[in-house]
Amino acid sequence: MVFIGYGNVNYHISNALYETSQVYVKQVVSQNNKDLFRTLKNISFTTDFQKVEEADLYIIAVPDDAIEDVSNRLGARKGLVAHTSGSVSIKVLNTHERYGVFYPLQTFSKNRKVSFQDIPICIEANSNSDLALLRTLATSISDNVTEVSSEERATLHLAAVFVNNFTNYLYAVSEDILKAKGLDFSLLKPLLQETAEKVQSLSPKEAQTGPAKRNDIKTMQNHVHLLQQLGKEPLIELYKKLSEGIQQNQTNENS
Amino acid sequence: MVFIGYGNVNYHISNALYETSQVYVKQVVSQNNKDLFRTLKNISFTTDFQKVEEADLYIIAVPDDAIEDVSNRLGARKGLVAHTSGSVSIKVLNTHERYGVFYPLQTFSKNRKVSFQDIPICIEANSNSDLALLRTLATSISDNVTEVSSEERATLHLAAVFVNNFTNYLYAVSEDILKAKGLDFSLLKPLLQETAEKVQSLSPKEAQTGPAKRNDIKTMQNHVHLLQQLGKEPLIELYKKLSEGIQQNQTNENS
Repeated sequence: MVFIGYGNVNYHISNALYETSQVYVKQVVSQNNKDLFRTLKNISFTTDFQKVEEADLYIIAVPDDAIEDVSNRLGARKGLVAHTSGSVSIKVLNTHERYGVFYPLQTFSKNRKVSFQDIPICIEANSNSDLALLRTLATSISDNVTEVSSEERATLHLAAVFVNNFTNYLYAVSEDILKAKGLDFSLLKPLLQETAEKVQSLSPKEAQTGPAKRNDIKTMQNHVHLLQQLGKEPLIELYKKLSEGIQQNQTNENS
Repeated sequence: MVFIGYGNVNYHISNALYETSQVYVKQVVSQNNKDLFRTLKNISFTTDFQKVEEADLYIIAVPDDAIEDVSNRLGARKGLVAHTSGSVSIKVLNTHERYGVFYPLQTFSKNRKVSFQDIPICIEANSNSDLALLRTLATSISDNVTEVSSEERATLHLAAVFVNNFTNYLYAVSEDILKAKGLDFSLLKPLLQETAEKVQSLSPKEAQTGPAKRNDIKTMQNHVHLLQQLGKEPLIELYKKLSEGIQQNQTNENS
């Protein structure tokens, strides 16, 4: 295998695969992140696309808008070329004979080790044999491997933005609100963790609580006044929008 | 101690205290939830406020808008009267001589056992001696006990709505989006759990990722189109509002 791009995604994929010893990682191609690369020993490294070696599988994990360009610079290859993006269609790789997608549905950070075993890996390929190849690779590190079309993957990625990027933004908003009163965000950590734990077994609609769900208008009004007092007026519209959403879900359920 | 109201909050508090054997639970006063009550053995039970026994401490955990009424029906008592609400001021109890607040900052469900040890308990009282009493009680079940004024507690509760109620709503939105394509919400569970895990050590602003953070306009446009295609137009405004919020945070950080 050759890894092209060596940001958080390929760093974590390569480390997980390295531990299984099921594959031979031949080369890493990257413009930077040499430091990250050093954690993988005895593997050749290049920044030069002319020097990319022949391999059975190339995994491209670069920013979404660079995938097509990187794929083109790779040139004609006998091996399977796959990207790892949630939102980019498999079609951007169709200049190759064999192409596919290997999308781990998780958020990766440099300094956090993640257990791949539970991470859903969504695979797609332009042939059944390469789909089987990607499945073998994926099941060597994860118990949760699913074939997902580019269209389905785009929907998954959109939903992932809500549970990851937007949820994290709500955490940031909470931290800001607490800061306005000199309160520590760590007071909310057990709560936000339990909020995520709860929906591991309950559906989110069953797990819903709070003033909007109870239609507790007095508490909601108090919250809006408090946002004003704290100088957080820009958050009032968001507060109302999210509360309305909860009430709407509630109405749909009761009707 | 006497517990007044026996919904999720007093159920969990009483069970946690029961296990420590530091207190003698004398009576439970409740209009309903007799089934829940049966889990506590050998404790007297009444629905009649005339029959509430004398105790050192009364913990009122009833819906926010019923606290004042229940407090009044309790009548004059020698013991300390405390409520457990995040959003109700200590003042609603000031008809009593000794009053306070015992607010566990967590979401409770009937069927989920929670470990109290990590749950922040916010205490407040109208005298130092009763503050000390609540602190002794709270530290017997939690390692995270803080004195918090009613004003600070209102702010905490507002922030809690963002990380709990609103976050859970985003989970519900994601489930809806996936359902439109017949995809299973469980694919997102490892991601949403890691999202909560990440901010246990990183600040939410450091942990922020995604198209809005990267100012990836193409992906955001694709997401808006996809919401249209999926018949989820009402979510477009929310998507834009949350993305704008992330971009605003980003701008503030860079400036």
